[in-house]
Amino acid sequence: MSEWIYADHAATTRVSDRALEAMMPFLREEYANPSAVYAPGRRVRRALDRARETVAAAFGAQPGEIYFTGGGTESDNWVIRAAAELQGGEKKRLITSAVEHHAILRTFETMRRRGYEAKVLGVDRNGRISLEALRAAAGKDAALVSVMTANNEVGTVMPVAEIGAAAHDSGAVFHTDAVQAAGHIPIDVDRMGIDMMSFSGHKFGGPKGVGGLFVRKGLPIPPGLFGGGQERGLRSGTENVAGIVGMAAALEESCRNMRENAEKASRLRDRLIRGVLRIPGTRLTGDPENRLPGHASFLFDGVEGEALVLLLDQNGICASSGSACSAGALEPSHVLLAMGFSAEEARGSLRLTLGPDNTDAEIDALLEKLPNIIVRLRSGA
Amino acid sequence: MSEWIYADHAATTRVSDRALEAMMPFLREEYANPSAVYAPGRRVRRALDRARETVAAAFGAQPGEIYFTGGGTESDNWVIRAAAELQGGEKKRLITSAVEHHAILRTFETMRRRGYEAKVLGVDRNGRISLEALRAAAGKDAALVSVMTANNEVGTVMPVAEIGAAAHDSGAVFHTDAVQAAGHIPIDVDRMGIDMMSFSGHKFGGPKGVGGLFVRKGLPIPPGLFGGGQERGLRSGTENVAGIVGMAAALEESCRNMRENAEKASRLRDRLIRGVLRIPGTRLTGDPENRLPGHASFLFDGVEGEALVLLLDQNGICASSGSACSAGALEPSHVLLAMGFSAEEARGSLRLTLGPDNTDAEIDALLEKLPNIIVRLRSGA
Repeated sequence: MSEWIYADHAATTRVSDRALEAMMPFLREEYANPSAVYAPGRRVRRALDRARETVAAAFGAQPGEIYFTGGGTESDNWVIRAAAELQGGEKKRLITSAVEHHAILRTFETMRRRGYEAKVLGVDRNGRISLEALRAAAGKDAALVSVMTANNEVGTVMPVAEIGAAAHDSGAVFHTDAVQAAGHIPIDVDRMGIDMMSFSGHKFGGPKGVGGLFVRKGLPIPPGLFGGGQERGLRSGTENVAGIVGMAAALEESCRNMRENAEKASRLRDRLIRGVLRIPGTRLTGDPENRLPGHASFLFDGVEGEALVLLLDQNGICASSGSACSAGALEPSHVLLAMGFSAEEARGSLRLTLGPDNTDAEIDALLEKLPNIIVRLRSGA
Repeated sequence: MSEWIYADHAATTRVSDRALEAMMPFLREEYANPSAVYAPGRRVRRALDRARETVAAAFGAQPGEIYFTGGGTESDNWVIRAAAELQGGEKKRLITSAVEHHAILRTFETMRRRGYEAKVLGVDRNGRISLEALRAAAGKDAALVSVMTANNEVGTVMPVAEIGAAAHDSGAVFHTDAVQAAGHIPIDVDRMGIDMMSFSGHKFGGPKGVGGLFVRKGLPIPPGLFGGGQERGLRSGTENVAGIVGMAAALEESCRNMRENAEKASRLRDRLIRGVLRIPGTRLTGDPENRLPGHASFLFDGVEGEALVLLLDQNGICASSGSACSAGALEPSHVLLAMGFSAEEARGSLRLTLGPDNTDAEIDALLEKLPNIIVRLRSGA
């Protein structure tokens, strides 16, 4: 893809060279099952242990608080389904925000059908929830508050520490979907009052198909998958060793380079935003201040986002018009609707998300091509 | 591990060269999200489509009947949890066998707590269920019958086609956990009356952390994971592209070479069994006829299986004393107990499982070392 301008890092990222290098032994000679008692199995087990330590350290957690899963969606589903047992099954109120990923929102729907009171908080024009509304909704007997760390479609970073405090005031357990944030902005589970947190390897230079869940020690979360008893009995299934090791290497690398990567991505992003906003009939979506380093998202009046993305594709630019998951879906973004945009407005959305590989020359190229493409689309050509 | 004798192929297998080769582009340049609409995303989508066609063809299924998951355990959990909705939620009787993997048995327990009548069928001394007992237990209104294709601990192959027919006679949907069988013995979902089937990539030369579920067209299975709507809405989460492509390549290779591999593995296995049974106080476990090609499992009187495995380890031999998952667990095997062995007898179990890489020279070495190790353990040295 070197001839392409890849500006869809929120959808997925290239596996970093370091991550791939870390994975290769476990796709080749170190293939033993980590549950096996013989020496090759014990070597693989130690690699898993080290990966767990690395991941835990990246979030200020303990290794025993990290559970590896098949990705962010599995982690999110696990947490929400577990709400029933997290607090003895007596508290029935679950709180989330209207701009969560569908992995949260659609699992919430299943809990509602199971008799839970599932409250979905609205957001402001920038995509942030109100702490007052959260406190009012949670009352004093909420079971779970689940609010994402940063939004995938508009890049808004939530006031996670304040949300965590408010959740705890209401007696709730606090979960955050940090799939977009992990490896990109600092996360400290203690300082931010996070009880549970989902993350996904392929969003920060790890491979697809692996993720994890942080669960604070002592929280009685029921198993996500039943079986052979892997992951201390909570997530059975032979471990995706290569994936886990690759994810850990990528996370370590991302965290070590976080400041540098974020400075570069923010600078490129700000150049991009300034340039794009010069196009008439263009708005930035998401919080102008509290946003992910590489994340730029826009609305163009009188433009169909899907058509825009296809025309960018023809110009060698990888971009998206919403989340990757719902690409192809013609429904307007639930995130933009929740932020108060009309369905008509929401259809003109474009997301450009940058990573450490992007260059100033690519921003130049984007800013050269995009205005003409917008003019062409608006003229119906 | 080349200096080792790897005789634990039922625990996991080496990723085949062909599978790894197929995976590499998707760990390197072809990293786009398959849900993305731009050309690099569409290329990845096509690779997923081809993998689905390959996997479907291996089982005589249609591509639209294959759902990719994070492994056999996830597939098993999905199916059993889905039992509630598979038949409109009215039928409450679930049937399985006492020798299933814990991914089935422990999920059955959760269904029992949810008000299902979960019947667990006993097996004979060879590890096979009785069709008469199945028919009696299922009656005329069972929701689901789930019986494995082949057992992981003792290698017994079940009469799957007959079980499928009996399940259908009772109005039940038939699921089989084919994790040990797929890629090793012929499977045809139509001919064998299979409605749903779990499989796992790393048991036939694919990578760990990827598997799948066959679901016959028209069966109203509810989603396993909620979210972005991948896998036709039934198993959300960004696809493990490299893993899926690797699994498909491994399965294709295993099926193409199945007869040759099975002949070789059976020949080595039979040599091994004949040689081991010359050791006094030794019994073969599992069905002597209906067993997996590379699978040899034994009971040694007066020997602790765990100690035996550790001593084999010191002699450069990778073997196990039960399932890989429960390695380290000191409970006697539920499979051997169900087959009528006492807890005392079951403790002396050893499983040696062979694959296409094993050689006659390795069988020679095993047969040379094992008798001395047994003598040593029995003498308490």
